[in-house]
Amino acid sequence: MNRFTEKMNAVVEKLAQPQSCRDLFREYNEGAPLPSAKVLEEIIELVRSIMFPGYYGNCNVNTGTLRFHLGVNIERLYTLLIKQIQAGLSFADYRDVAVYAAYNKQTVITELFRMATARAEAFIERLPEMRRILATDVKAAYDGDPAAKNFGEIISCYPIIKVLTIYRMAHILWELEVPLIPRMLTELAHSETGVDIHPGAQIGEYFTIDHGTGVVIGETTIIGNNVKLYQGVTLGAKSFPLDADGNPIKGILRHPIIEDDVIIYSNASILGRITIGKGAVIGSNVSISHDIPAGTTVTQK
Amino acid sequence: MNRFTEKMNAVVEKLAQPQSCRDLFREYNEGAPLPSAKVLEEIIELVRSIMFPGYYGNCNVNTGTLRFHLGVNIERLYTLLIKQIQAGLSFADYRDVAVYAAYNKQTVITELFRMATARAEAFIERLPEMRRILATDVKAAYDGDPAAKNFGEIISCYPIIKVLTIYRMAHILWELEVPLIPRMLTELAHSETGVDIHPGAQIGEYFTIDHGTGVVIGETTIIGNNVKLYQGVTLGAKSFPLDADGNPIKGILRHPIIEDDVIIYSNASILGRITIGKGAVIGSNVSISHDIPAGTTVTQK
Amino acid sequence: MNRFTEKMNAVVEKLAQPQSCRDLFREYNEGAPLPSAKVLEEIIELVRSIMFPGYYGNCNVNTGTLRFHLGVNIERLYTLLIKQIQAGLSFADYRDVAVYAAYNKQTVITELFRMATARAEAFIERLPEMRRILATDVKAAYDGDPAAKNFGEIISCYPIIKVLTIYRMAHILWELEVPLIPRMLTELAHSETGVDIHPGAQIGEYFTIDHGTGVVIGETTIIGNNVKLYQGVTLGAKSFPLDADGNPIKGILRHPIIEDDVIIYSNASILGRITIGKGAVIGSNVSISHDIPAGTTVTQK
Amino acid sequence: MNRFTEKMNAVVEKLAQPQSCRDLFREYNEGAPLPSAKVLEEIIELVRSIMFPGYYGNCNVNTGTLRFHLGVNIERLYTLLIKQIQAGLSFADYRDVAVYAAYNKQTVITELFRMATARAEAFIERLPEMRRILATDVKAAYDGDPAAKNFGEIISCYPIIKVLTIYRMAHILWELEVPLIPRMLTELAHSETGVDIHPGAQIGEYFTIDHGTGVVIGETTIIGNNVKLYQGVTLGAKSFPLDADGNPIKGILRHPIIEDDVIIYSNASILGRITIGKGAVIGSNVSISHDIPAGTTVTQK
Amino acid sequence: MNRFTEKMNAVVEKLAQPQSCRDLFREYNEGAPLPSAKVLEEIIELVRSIMFPGYYGNCNVNTGTLRFHLGVNIERLYTLLIKQIQAGLSFADYRDVAVYAAYNKQTVITELFRMATARAEAFIERLPEMRRILATDVKAAYDGDPAAKNFGEIISCYPIIKVLTIYRMAHILWELEVPLIPRMLTELAHSETGVDIHPGAQIGEYFTIDHGTGVVIGETTIIGNNVKLYQGVTLGAKSFPLDADGNPIKGILRHPIIEDDVIIYSNASILGRITIGKGAVIGSNVSISHDIPAGTTVTQK
Amino acid sequence: MNRFTEKMNAVVEKLAQPQSCRDLFREYNEGAPLPSAKVLEEIIELVRSIMFPGYYGNCNVNTGTLRFHLGVNIERLYTLLIKQIQAGLSFADYRDVAVYAAYNKQTVITELFRMATARAEAFIERLPEMRRILATDVKAAYDGDPAAKNFGEIISCYPIIKVLTIYRMAHILWELEVPLIPRMLTELAHSETGVDIHPGAQIGEYFTIDHGTGVVIGETTIIGNNVKLYQGVTLGAKSFPLDADGNPIKGILRHPIIEDDVIIYSNASILGRITIGKGAVIGSNVSISHDIPAGTTVTQK
Repeated sequence: MNRFTEKMNAVVEKLAQPQSCRDLFREYNEGAPLPSAKVLEEIIELVRSIMFPGYYGNCNVNTGTLRFHLGVNIERLYTLLIKQIQAGLSFADYRDVAVYAAYNKQTVITELFRMATARAEAFIERLPEMRRILATDVKAAYDGDPAAKNFGEIISCYPIIKVLTIYRMAHILWELEVPLIPRMLTELAHSETGVDIHPGAQIGEYFTIDHGTGVVIGETTIIGNNVKLYQGVTLGAKSFPLDADGNPIKGILRHPIIEDDVIIYSNASILGRITIGKGAVIGSNVSISHDIPAGTTVTQK
Repeated sequence: MNRFTEKMNAVVEKLAQPQSCRDLFREYNEGAPLPSAKVLEEIIELVRSIMFPGYYGNCNVNTGTLRFHLGVNIERLYTLLIKQIQAGLSFADYRDVAVYAAYNKQTVITELFRMATARAEAFIERLPEMRRILATDVKAAYDGDPAAKNFGEIISCYPIIKVLTIYRMAHILWELEVPLIPRMLTELAHSETGVDIHPGAQIGEYFTIDHGTGVVIGETTIIGNNVKLYQGVTLGAKSFPLDADGNPIKGILRHPIIEDDVIIYSNASILGRITIGKGAVIGSNVSISHDIPAGTTVTQK
Repeated sequence: MNRFTEKMNAVVEKLAQPQSCRDLFREYNEGAPLPSAKVLEEIIELVRSIMFPGYYGNCNVNTGTLRFHLGVNIERLYTLLIKQIQAGLSFADYRDVAVYAAYNKQTVITELFRMATARAEAFIERLPEMRRILATDVKAAYDGDPAAKNFGEIISCYPIIKVLTIYRMAHILWELEVPLIPRMLTELAHSETGVDIHPGAQIGEYFTIDHGTGVVIGETTIIGNNVKLYQGVTLGAKSFPLDADGNPIKGILRHPIIEDDVIIYSNASILGRITIGKGAVIGSNVSISHDIPAGTTVTQK
Repeated sequence: MNRFTEKMNAVVEKLAQPQSCRDLFREYNEGAPLPSAKVLEEIIELVRSIMFPGYYGNCNVNTGTLRFHLGVNIERLYTLLIKQIQAGLSFADYRDVAVYAAYNKQTVITELFRMATARAEAFIERLPEMRRILATDVKAAYDGDPAAKNFGEIISCYPIIKVLTIYRMAHILWELEVPLIPRMLTELAHSETGVDIHPGAQIGEYFTIDHGTGVVIGETTIIGNNVKLYQGVTLGAKSFPLDADGNPIKGILRHPIIEDDVIIYSNASILGRITIGKGAVIGSNVSISHDIPAGTTVTQK
Repeated sequence: MNRFTEKMNAVVEKLAQPQSCRDLFREYNEGAPLPSAKVLEEIIELVRSIMFPGYYGNCNVNTGTLRFHLGVNIERLYTLLIKQIQAGLSFADYRDVAVYAAYNKQTVITELFRMATARAEAFIERLPEMRRILATDVKAAYDGDPAAKNFGEIISCYPIIKVLTIYRMAHILWELEVPLIPRMLTELAHSETGVDIHPGAQIGEYFTIDHGTGVVIGETTIIGNNVKLYQGVTLGAKSFPLDADGNPIKGILRHPIIEDDVIIYSNASILGRITIGKGAVIGSNVSISHDIPAGTTVTQK
Repeated sequence: MNRFTEKMNAVVEKLAQPQSCRDLFREYNEGAPLPSAKVLEEIIELVRSIMFPGYYGNCNVNTGTLRFHLGVNIERLYTLLIKQIQAGLSFADYRDVAVYAAYNKQTVITELFRMATARAEAFIERLPEMRRILATDVKAAYDGDPAAKNFGEIISCYPIIKVLTIYRMAHILWELEVPLIPRMLTELAHSETGVDIHPGAQIGEYFTIDHGTGVVIGETTIIGNNVKLYQGVTLGAKSFPLDADGNPIKGILRHPIIEDDVIIYSNASILGRITIGKGAVIGSNVSISHDIPAGTTVTQK
């Protein structure tokens, strides 16, 4: 054993100490790996190919074969979702390793599998409605950008459609109380496009964001129909109350309400549980932390 | 057939209805798949290896073998480009499926192939000039960043060089009237770097952007020589006129003109068809929507 | 030889001219390829799996097998690091090709190998301390976000942890005077998350950034403990002196000092070698270029 | 240019001389690459998944989704086949490069595409009959091997089924006069299993080979129903007449006829256009070059 | 729907008919996919890396780190084995789909998981003994081939060692009554090397085969210590009795017994439940179907 | 630590004992990994693309670009070869780990690098002569098979050309005294085609093997010009003398000499240092172990 091997063994020893890895070490429970970012990416691709056949997934699809492709893709989506949702459900309980061991492990797995299957099924059933809403988003992106040549260009390369496809599926999973996965999905969209929409946010139809990089939409945000944002816009929290121990209280309504027909220009920051009234226009680089009446235009002084 | 399979068949049926997938479904025309993002990434890698031999592509290249590498890379680039441009040309007509069927399909394909070949050839011939300009951009990035150690560091890891290599090739394809692909290319750069430059924008020599994330440069922007931007800068449109049907009129000149020697600091927004005069300096977080005279400095109040 | 082949040969000829490729061409030195972005990505994955066992890398790890996994991962990390650091050291001298040839090439390689080995070893020895600090960052992210459900969610999908893991390893390599690689690493983080932290910046413990996209932290920035930033914040340089030849002088202290307990909200720009005093709060979209006293709150007018 | 680069340039020069590469160099015709072994492997996988659903291809298939899977796989098979058959047809004419150039290239491509499409269609229509015959082969393998546990074991791992699936599809393509591809297919089977069946051979139903390695079945062989071979059996040619120039005359009937119900044991060689009569048994390691009457048993002396 | 799409739908319809796909269609049972050839290949690689550290698997292993590598590889082997063995156990019952549905599916899965875990554990415990025997095989190959330069050459490239590593692990799994997988493993070896050893065969220590292609060793063969075979040797069955229905009776002892110290030269066929006595030598191309006394030499007449 | 983890630790302990892994464990020497089968496969592909441009490697090659492709491929071949040959040279000394440590390690590496470079260079210079001989082999295969349609079919799918390309490059490396790699190369050919030619064998021009599976050609075999073999032919050793310790004496001439114009039919075995005279014909399944006069025909009795 040479000199470095000795040093290395010492480093291994330090890093394996409980006090070093506590909280940062996820111990393996049979049947309970983490949801996989790689599989979630495949799931996103499947949803895109179901929403926009011919643009994503196999391009050799025509009217006569569309059902075959939808069938195969939806079946695979369902199979992958069950496994990932089961992983997410396991994760949510990860601190209860002791409890886990006390119960019959297989009973827990069986129950999680049953729950995951029900949620995957519910997700599949919401796909047609999800496509109906995405069609309004595609139209909003087209109507809102003079540079857009046709719907196909929007669908195949606009980041907003990539983000909204992921956000809308993540939001459905959020409503179905699937843990962790909705957040992992929107972080994948965040990394790809620079747009960070929390899966808990509620967003109406015919919504669009131009360019997108730097946009943040917080967990308790509510957005109406026909709203348009530009790059760099923040719909964020201003501050949040702490509990007796000094920890932030979870679940407080702390992000804005944006009513129908609002436009918010680049780099504006809208902070706190305030309301931007119907039809208001917020100029670029403005920072706002109080209600704005309907129909008002606010610009940088 | 179990219970879920029945449900799944019902969902397939809904998603295959014409009213559900209209506008979101791209029907396949033989010989006319969409341009492929994956192939475009290979094209970008080839252009990088031609522009910066030894930094990108095969690193085993020396003076005695440079011609071999350039030859093989340019030939492959040419072959890939023809196919992608042909796909882009097909796409531009994608609504005319009926027309397509009426004509002899092979005649259309033959004509598109001829057009694609001519444009790929023209692109190849512009590579030496494109490298000449990129050399000025590399120098601009080096001169403008006290943290830069040498040209090699700039070429191998600065995001601005990644963006400009893609933008400059996309702009040439834009000038050659290649549809869709220029936009797909700049969206790849946007996703990688957070910098969104429309391929139609005109940008002079010795141009640089520091850090870059969040920068937006719109379709009709004109930028002179020796201009420097910082992260978060928007060169955008303020608003745009609608036609009689309420749709935005396409092709209006709606983005700024930035003259030579201008510096624009982080998060500033320059909006509308205004002119920032030669040598002006715009401070960070400022929002501007009117002309700025040459030599002026503008800062946040 | 057909017509295009002739044209292509002419383009090859132009691009192979010394005046065309000067400064943009990296000639190959045996044993001295560039550091590889792809290998650096594997190195990042290894460090993540060492810092957060079970969350990254092989998920089948438990108390009884943790040492095996740490041992294999650290050994591979060490092997990969030596080769990449050697490449970085070669690169730093890349202009001295003539010198290189004059010396015995193998002597140079032997010396670089010795230097690389020593630095890789030093890096490995600093892993336990690096994990100790990252644990404070994970806690800061959890405490600072009411939307966070548990530590596992933070570790597995928050961009700030991805960025800080990379920044903290890059900063160690920076202190060990490894050329090029620290910058390549932080650019990988920049591309993935939109957060651009220069590896030379000094950042204290219990640090966090919410959302992150668009944040820039410059080379000579100093940040204390318990500091929190939001998306779009710039800690940048205002301007920098030129030398007699008009080139920026390298190495000047030109970025801010942020003292302990400071909060800076979204899109604020802090520019120049100024000090933001202990406990200060900077509002969103503000641009600041002078000292701010401890305890002060600054908001947009 | 260093010493080796000079040598290398000299070697390149020699290898590029017409007299060196004549006959060994296939010059590229636009639209006419060779059939691809890699794509043929994907085609084989598709045919396996169509013949044996659930054993090959996506294993998540049940009665309710079988049609979806068949539809998607057959469509993809059809698309891949057209392109490969077109490549095979181009190849067959590869010596006529001059002719090629004289004609309008696009006309040739159009015609080849039409021919390839017709043959791919004919192939697809023969799939149900092909499956019917393969079912008899599976039964023959099961009945003939006391070690076989069930049909599933035969289908999922017996080399004879791998070989026969490929041979039977290659033989259909051979009958459809597709050039080159049938031979490439059987060579892939040869490499995988050590069984070399020429695609031109005619083989009846309920056929099997035990173990298989070393079996050779020549181009003009005719095999009846219910025949069983063991490893190392040769059904070959004895000698063949030369033409006036000393070249072998192509197309002579030179391989054996094996009638129904014959068994041939390991390493036996059956050579020339002879007939092995119905129900004959040939012992191992025997070499035979004359007719064997029906019902006879022949063993090594 | 164009003309081909109609035809295709008709073909799909035929292939989906129960009478067409009966016996060839494996319907999916949740949790019960087939064992995967791809995963088995990874399992083989893991076993090779455990048997021959440094020759297979990660080559960066030394005395100081050997335990880490063994630990990680054995843990992964164990995890993969459980899943594959469970798949094999499910498969063995695959005809009982009705039964499966009647029982509580999760109960069956739980029981199969328990059985699979026990067998995987038993396999792991036999690894040290397996390596002890393989060491004698390596020595036999070295001693028996004047062309061999050293043990390393034998281990890294002789097909016999590839075959025996797979056969010996398959035989252990066979003894542990794991269904299907042992046969799949030896077929992978068969395809790679042309040597077909049934996993049920019993083979003593210090065994070798020179060259190997075409060798067949049947299910009930028994081979002593210090036996050497050459390429093309068959240890096969002569014929086998049929039951009342004309089906071969499974499980009959029908292959040869080869006693210690026997040599069998190329292409010899040894057929039936006969005994080749201790120290006998069988010449090439001989076919034998009766006992051979100890010490005898038999050659082709 | 659960029960299995304990067992696993015990197995790890046993397998890490020196007496268990002695001779089967290759300890790592920095800079001295084994030659890589994966890289050798890339080397084979490169040699094929150099020998048969357009058939292997990039298919987009024409007269005008042939030099570029040859240049890039030869340069890459050279770079890969140096590294692999250096690995082979290190391997040859692998038992001398102690010696290795005593010397200055870098000195040894430097010397091995120098040796490897010289041999790689010599190999490159022999490529044109290698192609000249392969052209005669292609012609022999074409002339000898009535089923062959054209040279292209031979080059693109006949196993004999795959084998001979590998054998002829392995034989050159054997003559250049490169250790291990020649044998690894021919084993790759053996696995792909079932033909086992030892790299030390000497084989004349215009050589062919029909079908090939099961052919063995031993280390000291000498084959003249215009020789044709069929599948299953063995050119092997009969027996070999042992030294005083009972080990086979290495380097004895023990394989046949096959003179010009000989044909040997399927499954024949030619054993020992005997001579098959010019123009002799050996029938199938014959075993021969004494000289055969020129012009004789030998068949099975």
